[in-house]
Amino acid sequence: MARIVMKFGGTSMAGTERIRRVANLVRAQAANGNEVAVVVSAMAGETDRLVNFCREANPLYDPAEYDVVVSSGEQVTSGLLALTLQAMGCKARSWLGWQLPVKTFSAHANARVGEIYAERLVESMQGGEIAVIPGFQGLSEEDRITTMGRGGSDTSAVAIAAAVEADRCDIYTDVDGVYTTDPRIVARARKLKYVTFEEMLELASVGAKVLQTRSVSLAMKRNVRLQVLSSFVGEGAPAADTLPGTMIVSEAEMDEIMEKENMERQTVTGIAHDKNEARVVLTRVPDRPGAVAEIFTPLGEAGINVDMIIQNVGRDKGETDVTFTVPKAELARAQALLEDRKDKIGFNRIITDAKVAKISVVGMGMKSHTGVAALMFKALADRGINVQAISTSEIKVSVLIDEDETELAVRVLHTAYGLDSDDAPVEVQGEVKA
Amino acid sequence: MARIVMKFGGTSMAGTERIRRVANLVRAQAANGNEVAVVVSAMAGETDRLVNFCREANPLYDPAEYDVVVSSGEQVTSGLLALTLQAMGCKARSWLGWQLPVKTFSAHANARVGEIYAERLVESMQGGEIAVIPGFQGLSEEDRITTMGRGGSDTSAVAIAAAVEADRCDIYTDVDGVYTTDPRIVARARKLKYVTFEEMLELASVGAKVLQTRSVSLAMKRNVRLQVLSSFVGEGAPAADTLPGTMIVSEAEMDEIMEKENMERQTVTGIAHDKNEARVVLTRVPDRPGAVAEIFTPLGEAGINVDMIIQNVGRDKGETDVTFTVPKAELARAQALLEDRKDKIGFNRIITDAKVAKISVVGMGMKSHTGVAALMFKALADRGINVQAISTSEIKVSVLIDEDETELAVRVLHTAYGLDSDDAPVEVQGEVKA
Repeated sequence: MARIVMKFGGTSMAGTERIRRVANLVRAQAANGNEVAVVVSAMAGETDRLVNFCREANPLYDPAEYDVVVSSGEQVTSGLLALTLQAMGCKARSWLGWQLPVKTFSAHANARVGEIYAERLVESMQGGEIAVIPGFQGLSEEDRITTMGRGGSDTSAVAIAAAVEADRCDIYTDVDGVYTTDPRIVARARKLKYVTFEEMLELASVGAKVLQTRSVSLAMKRNVRLQVLSSFVGEGAPAADTLPGTMIVSEAEMDEIMEKENMERQTVTGIAHDKNEARVVLTRVPDRPGAVAEIFTPLGEAGINVDMIIQNVGRDKGETDVTFTVPKAELARAQALLEDRKDKIGFNRIITDAKVAKISVVGMGMKSHTGVAALMFKALADRGINVQAISTSEIKVSVLIDEDETELAVRVLHTAYGLDSDDAPVEVQGEVKA
Repeated sequence: MARIVMKFGGTSMAGTERIRRVANLVRAQAANGNEVAVVVSAMAGETDRLVNFCREANPLYDPAEYDVVVSSGEQVTSGLLALTLQAMGCKARSWLGWQLPVKTFSAHANARVGEIYAERLVESMQGGEIAVIPGFQGLSEEDRITTMGRGGSDTSAVAIAAAVEADRCDIYTDVDGVYTTDPRIVARARKLKYVTFEEMLELASVGAKVLQTRSVSLAMKRNVRLQVLSSFVGEGAPAADTLPGTMIVSEAEMDEIMEKENMERQTVTGIAHDKNEARVVLTRVPDRPGAVAEIFTPLGEAGINVDMIIQNVGRDKGETDVTFTVPKAELARAQALLEDRKDKIGFNRIITDAKVAKISVVGMGMKSHTGVAALMFKALADRGINVQAISTSEIKVSVLIDEDETELAVRVLHTAYGLDSDDAPVEVQGEVKA
């Protein structure tokens, strides 16, 4: 017997037929004697419909009223899931964000979870009632509905799991776990049984968006055991003690697991790719103190997130080329902003390239192994793939390459780090989030 | 300057373009220096969509969860109207049922309005903020969302008007007022400038469903001045002191108005028709004490509303025919129920007729005038219309006739009671509710 929080996304909640499949998975967990709380998203497409209404009503919408409108999507699905569970003979009820309440703070439309008053919730779960909770919504200091920004339901689920001290928080998505890399690119990608919070954060930040980054941070901070698994694996539910998805655990727990299962940690856990960055080169920037600050301070003030930065050795004395990446969606704005400051910064010209991809290798094992980056550069060079920029963190090495070489690079690295599965190629189920 | 509650139905709120027209009407009232609260319904069709979801999820749905789902429709429109008003430069905010709160009691899905905590609402209105309130919803003793049954938004509006001590409660509908009769039948029907609560209740109960009956009762009880007017009369709003719709007032106020305007009260205010009744005749019922109770007690217990009852003089000694009406929708059930009790009641056979219509003449003036019923029978007889049953109240006479003669009867009576307008025939705008 365990206390479990289950979370289902919009694709799983799209229509009463799919909600019935979700209810079957929930009922199976409850039937195994578990105490269950379920956090749900709005039906796929519903939040977009509501956001569009808000934009039509008022392009510069008041986020407090936006939250009133948009939170209704999860309100509907939580009521419907409670009804469906009742139709199956389960005790169930919905708990809206303002009812618990889920206190939130800071901005409307992008609120952060604060304290959750879970006493009544725990009591009801202990009494055998399944709790159904709309994700994404909470209550402000001013007693008004708040929402947590797109994808906020993952964060809600983790926060609820922490508040009720759940044994596990199961996030059901349209993929069935975290893979060593995108299975659409590498057929022999392996599903990871375990991954650490830190690795998951790095993988999420470079494009493997199985979970919302904020939810992973919160789970790490509150030490909530997270599991990613698919809601499209058939009508039956997994037995309570099998782990068909990927568990996201603390480093300490990972060490215990490795020891218990007598396994050695891989140096590299996964390969991620990200096509959402664009490269900017400023040529012949004066090589003097403060010159680089002239470039990046205005970008930061404009909210443009600069990722990789390289300062090439100057070809001419006293001058240098500066290369960096920004999100593709911000490229035009960044370019305009820099052109405006051309004289002040003193560069010669701007070269931009949106046809680039960032490839990252991630693994906790890097902390104790050397040569990870060297292997990466060699494997890519052997296949003639040119590296345009490099950035590293403690457990990640990222390189920027030509976008056309994305799939090739991922496959080359997946093999180079020994991640290819011996089993038959993975069959991709459902839609894998990019 | 006045304090006004405005209420808009689902047709007026159907989509952001229509909500903009509503916002224009609201803004005009506020611009005249009035304090304004607006009560809104869900977009037309939305409540049906949500109810269908509930039925699909659970045919025997839990009304508490039904309320969670269904109340979201008004939540969306109240947020959208607040946003639209803000886009026009007005101060506005939404107040959900649980936020005020609007306390309700008795059953979910058909709750009755209790106390409304309107302090913060009044403060906000006094501060020049337009309050937007979702109709139809409230909060139960158990801190859960309730709804008031279909058409409950009219009742919400009246309850809010009573709570904030509004000078007027304006109900915007798809008709522009209360007419002497259905203008689709009588082109020379006149719009009534004033009608009393009692008359409105009688008219509503016999088919002129401009307002929900419960809202009229509540307005009468709490002495809220109600006005019915159309939201489809163009972009501009009426000036604050003109009354383009119909005012529903107390009898005392009506007397004052009549005196002030030096008018005499008409004996008959309006003619209503209702095609939703069916006639049942039980032949040769034993003419003994308690026989009639054997018929009507089981119907009452089954929740079947019996309206007109006539006990004909027996043709044979010791026997009598009993005629009565039930709602058409209940006819089959009533018939089955009576057949089951045939021996116990002791009747000979059941004759049913669903092709009947009830025609009613209504007017406070009847209290002080005699001969109203006699004129009705004579006028109908002169045109060869046979009266199958009669029922009367203090301010109403109803007769049952052949359904095919409905329009003829209404026209004949409209003329007989001197209700025909001297002006050009009425042009019917929008859809008149049957």
